[in-house]
Amino acid sequence: MVLEGIYAPIPTPFDAASGDILPGAMEENVTRWAVTTLDGLVVCGSNGELPFVSMDERASLVRAAKNAVARAKSGMNIIAGTFMNATRDAIECCKVCEGAGADAALMLPPHYFKASGMVGARKFFEDVANASPIPVVLYNMPANTGVNIDAATIKQLSAHPNIIGVKDTSGDMTQMGYIANDHHENFSVFCGSGNYFLPALSLGASGGTLAVANLYPESARFLLQAYVRGENEEARKLQYRLMSASDLLTRQYGVPGIKAAMDRAGLYGGPCRAPMGDLPDDAKRKLFESLDATGLEEYEKWRLG
Amino acid sequence: MVLEGIYAPIPTPFDAASGDILPGAMEENVTRWAVTTLDGLVVCGSNGELPFVSMDERASLVRAAKNAVARAKSGMNIIAGTFMNATRDAIECCKVCEGAGADAALMLPPHYFKASGMVGARKFFEDVANASPIPVVLYNMPANTGVNIDAATIKQLSAHPNIIGVKDTSGDMTQMGYIANDHHENFSVFCGSGNYFLPALSLGASGGTLAVANLYPESARFLLQAYVRGENEEARKLQYRLMSASDLLTRQYGVPGIKAAMDRAGLYGGPCRAPMGDLPDDAKRKLFESLDATGLEEYEKWRLG
Amino acid sequence: MVLEGIYAPIPTPFDAASGDILPGAMEENVTRWAVTTLDGLVVCGSNGELPFVSMDERASLVRAAKNAVARAKSGMNIIAGTFMNATRDAIECCKVCEGAGADAALMLPPHYFKASGMVGARKFFEDVANASPIPVVLYNMPANTGVNIDAATIKQLSAHPNIIGVKDTSGDMTQMGYIANDHHENFSVFCGSGNYFLPALSLGASGGTLAVANLYPESARFLLQAYVRGENEEARKLQYRLMSASDLLTRQYGVPGIKAAMDRAGLYGGPCRAPMGDLPDDAKRKLFESLDATGLEEYEKWRLG
Amino acid sequence: MVLEGIYAPIPTPFDAASGDILPGAMEENVTRWAVTTLDGLVVCGSNGELPFVSMDERASLVRAAKNAVARAKSGMNIIAGTFMNATRDAIECCKVCEGAGADAALMLPPHYFKASGMVGARKFFEDVANASPIPVVLYNMPANTGVNIDAATIKQLSAHPNIIGVKDTSGDMTQMGYIANDHHENFSVFCGSGNYFLPALSLGASGGTLAVANLYPESARFLLQAYVRGENEEARKLQYRLMSASDLLTRQYGVPGIKAAMDRAGLYGGPCRAPMGDLPDDAKRKLFESLDATGLEEYEKWRLG
Repeated sequence: MVLEGIYAPIPTPFDAASGDILPGAMEENVTRWAVTTLDGLVVCGSNGELPFVSMDERASLVRAAKNAVARAKSGMNIIAGTFMNATRDAIECCKVCEGAGADAALMLPPHYFKASGMVGARKFFEDVANASPIPVVLYNMPANTGVNIDAATIKQLSAHPNIIGVKDTSGDMTQMGYIANDHHENFSVFCGSGNYFLPALSLGASGGTLAVANLYPESARFLLQAYVRGENEEARKLQYRLMSASDLLTRQYGVPGIKAAMDRAGLYGGPCRAPMGDLPDDAKRKLFESLDATGLEEYEKWRLG
Repeated sequence: MVLEGIYAPIPTPFDAASGDILPGAMEENVTRWAVTTLDGLVVCGSNGELPFVSMDERASLVRAAKNAVARAKSGMNIIAGTFMNATRDAIECCKVCEGAGADAALMLPPHYFKASGMVGARKFFEDVANASPIPVVLYNMPANTGVNIDAATIKQLSAHPNIIGVKDTSGDMTQMGYIANDHHENFSVFCGSGNYFLPALSLGASGGTLAVANLYPESARFLLQAYVRGENEEARKLQYRLMSASDLLTRQYGVPGIKAAMDRAGLYGGPCRAPMGDLPDDAKRKLFESLDATGLEEYEKWRLG
Repeated sequence: MVLEGIYAPIPTPFDAASGDILPGAMEENVTRWAVTTLDGLVVCGSNGELPFVSMDERASLVRAAKNAVARAKSGMNIIAGTFMNATRDAIECCKVCEGAGADAALMLPPHYFKASGMVGARKFFEDVANASPIPVVLYNMPANTGVNIDAATIKQLSAHPNIIGVKDTSGDMTQMGYIANDHHENFSVFCGSGNYFLPALSLGASGGTLAVANLYPESARFLLQAYVRGENEEARKLQYRLMSASDLLTRQYGVPGIKAAMDRAGLYGGPCRAPMGDLPDDAKRKLFESLDATGLEEYEKWRLG
Repeated sequence: MVLEGIYAPIPTPFDAASGDILPGAMEENVTRWAVTTLDGLVVCGSNGELPFVSMDERASLVRAAKNAVARAKSGMNIIAGTFMNATRDAIECCKVCEGAGADAALMLPPHYFKASGMVGARKFFEDVANASPIPVVLYNMPANTGVNIDAATIKQLSAHPNIIGVKDTSGDMTQMGYIANDHHENFSVFCGSGNYFLPALSLGASGGTLAVANLYPESARFLLQAYVRGENEEARKLQYRLMSASDLLTRQYGVPGIKAAMDRAGLYGGPCRAPMGDLPDDAKRKLFESLDATGLEEYEKWRLG
């Protein structure tokens, strides 16, 4: 498996009454995304409320997504968020999600205890990669974890045959420059946010896992194509519009914003799992207005389907 | 229950071969601590490797500790670390640990997603406190979580009848000054580290949960008594020695250091659970030399027992 | 000269029309402070708007303060803020201020360029101390400079015969514990803020340079005396009141707040030098109400003089 | 004047014996740069050791640079670093540098006192821009100042007729995306570092002020041209090489590294002004090897001249 193109890190659907996961809603959502040009989905990443979802629930959600992909005869890959705090649980989660059909495992570094630093992070990733039946994708997300996996460590880990890439959400373009251009073979670098998708592409990222791609996958696709064709002015304009939507759906309104926008678009968004709260109505209104102002709907015909 | 005096946040014993928890070793350790003047123990706090231990394991460990306390006819309270990322799991963990004998529940704020800030933290704590069968102690630990529960929020939460105090490990003495002097009734403020136990006492903390108290509970006691008696020069000297040991057992060598020192002292320290690593031999040697240099062993006769 | 007791870091008076310094107003203010129990004054420290005041202006202000001290036959020491970005200017400023009557020089570390770290800081302080005709006091103020002078570096510098102490405004009580208890001879540690004066005393600080002492010197004195006598409950109460005033005059309202409160108290506060702005009237009102709520006026009879 | 293309923020030459500035060496250096395709020079920016150079010295250095530009009949613009801590000094410095021939003034925000935030920053910039006889370029340099001028404030300031642009060295591509695409007329956005020159161009930056352009101006030019022509693969490769050199000359070796590399290239680098130290010989050797490994010399024929 090669990390390439555009992935959506999809939300986890919960039942409004019981708070339980809804694999059926997951299947319906994935069926909708299957008609887009998305290259893959991340199930139970940060946007899938990873810390709130148990290992068993993650397996059910992966299975539901995989079923929908298969039924739709889509080629989308499924990457599962398999981080657990203890190494043995993280390995077990990789195995369980592999059993449920995941193609790869997205893995955060240890982060509650920070003293062991990059030495500890490297050992953790190697221990997991050695034992995981599916390839591992490093997940660098310092805003949430307080830990940045540095460029030297990513390069070292890129030599591991079962580590195939990194999703970098640090936003640090010096780091992106290093890791996208200096790594071992069979390793890909993914941009972790639509806020700087084009800058990351310009440095050699092979694609991205973008929260904004839950709603605007074709906009991201047009941007990627404009970049590849060297249509830089077109790419710049698309990036600004995509960033505006991306920033709303990440830093400003976050997962509750994505879910609200999905509900409006006829997908199942639904409530978040507490302690993550839902958007109040006036925030939804503001979010929708701001999203509409980007005009990116014009590229997203699939939502009408 | 009133938070007062000196608590030890005790490590979780794991089997070296299987990596499983060892409730028996927990019982033996607690039996040893029962002859000290400790007022209580925290089971499965940060020093108990909280993020690596499941809800069921926490219950077993609490039960083991409680049994040992009961058999020893000790008055030590047992506070359980009951934080889980999802609110419903955190509540369930409070219930399970109450069933196992915990007297109170130590609770971190939500921290992977940081956007909801103090509003989200307050709602989380109130939801948990409303549902928990045992009183809740707020646990402010910004170095690990990246989130500081601010003084205004702590004051608001102090009004809740089922929230009895806060363990503050921010090290911010302005914040400590506010929260120790301006809160609602039936609320106590605990210092979270031996690094600044005396400064916290000087501001009105009613005691502390101190990693260093796993090995030096009587040193902490002498310090507390010197402070209470107004023997400030004596207290200053003890604080410097206690801080030296505390800093080694927290910022410098952490949980692996505490476990190594426990092994040396005839308690069960044992290995940490991965990804937390153990101390290499030369680090142990340095740690032991530095601990011995504090001379605090003179106060810790119980270890001979 | 030995750093001991309570110092006020006094504001710099500016003319409202021209923006020029007012040495006459400085003299009048110092004459007022001369009847208090203050042990010394800091002229052109952070509260003296150090970065906005030229070397020549600093000399004039020091001279004015020194004159007033002499005329009042007061024993107050004058410490001058002599930091300049270039080493040679910092040395020159020490000389010029010595010529104007300063007893010691308060010196920040280099901080615009941060790459040289503690090695560079140490060299800077040693170069200045070697050349300065008056003793140097290290000034650790990370909130303003972004640089913390660490405990190991402070210990090394404490061996220099012309470095007599440190004013630590880091608020880090672990650091305070180290530096107050582990340094070479003839070196004193001063607390840099009334927000944590008592905690610093409890660790061995010999006194403090406190913004709050511009208005509440006798309150700080009573606190210090209560601490020395071991009246810890009394000290705790005073610290809470002093902290409330201190926090208003530092983190909340800053230098503009001190100047407004001085105007109200019959001292010359006057305007700040731009870009530092003055307090709007409603902020003044709130500040005054909050200051009055501390009730500390009861100790400050000198203001009636 | 429109900010466009590639500027070098040139170092300030100091005499090794006296430590005084050397306007003659400045003229010689500028004469060398005048044969490159550089669009302009920044005199007394951060790389010109701005905080260590007095207002009079800045004027002399600007005059020297301007003379050399005139004699060489070069079209290079001269931007002067005119920040001073006090508003009135900053304005005076703009006037003095205008008198010496500067075309524009590069201005940091106030940063020693941070409490007034963006409101204070905005007032400062407006006061300076109102009084300055030359256009003002905002200078956002959070790594050195600890203050980030946020996107909303930059947009507001872009409406001022005498503020013509911003040099953004935050490295934050979300911010770059906003400010490069959403500002008032006659305002340009410059990238502040070669570490992310291409990413900034991809978002709409009109050029950059790049430390690396002191030595590799033509490499930066080729990169800019490749970007403009849509040769994205070529641009990516150049960016990686330029970044490698840029990172060495900024984060890794800083101004001392630039000066050492200039000495090697036959320009006048010379010593830094203390407290900025010079590179030891082994560091120089490592730096030169790493610079040579980029192979960018091939583009820099002007250095042979």
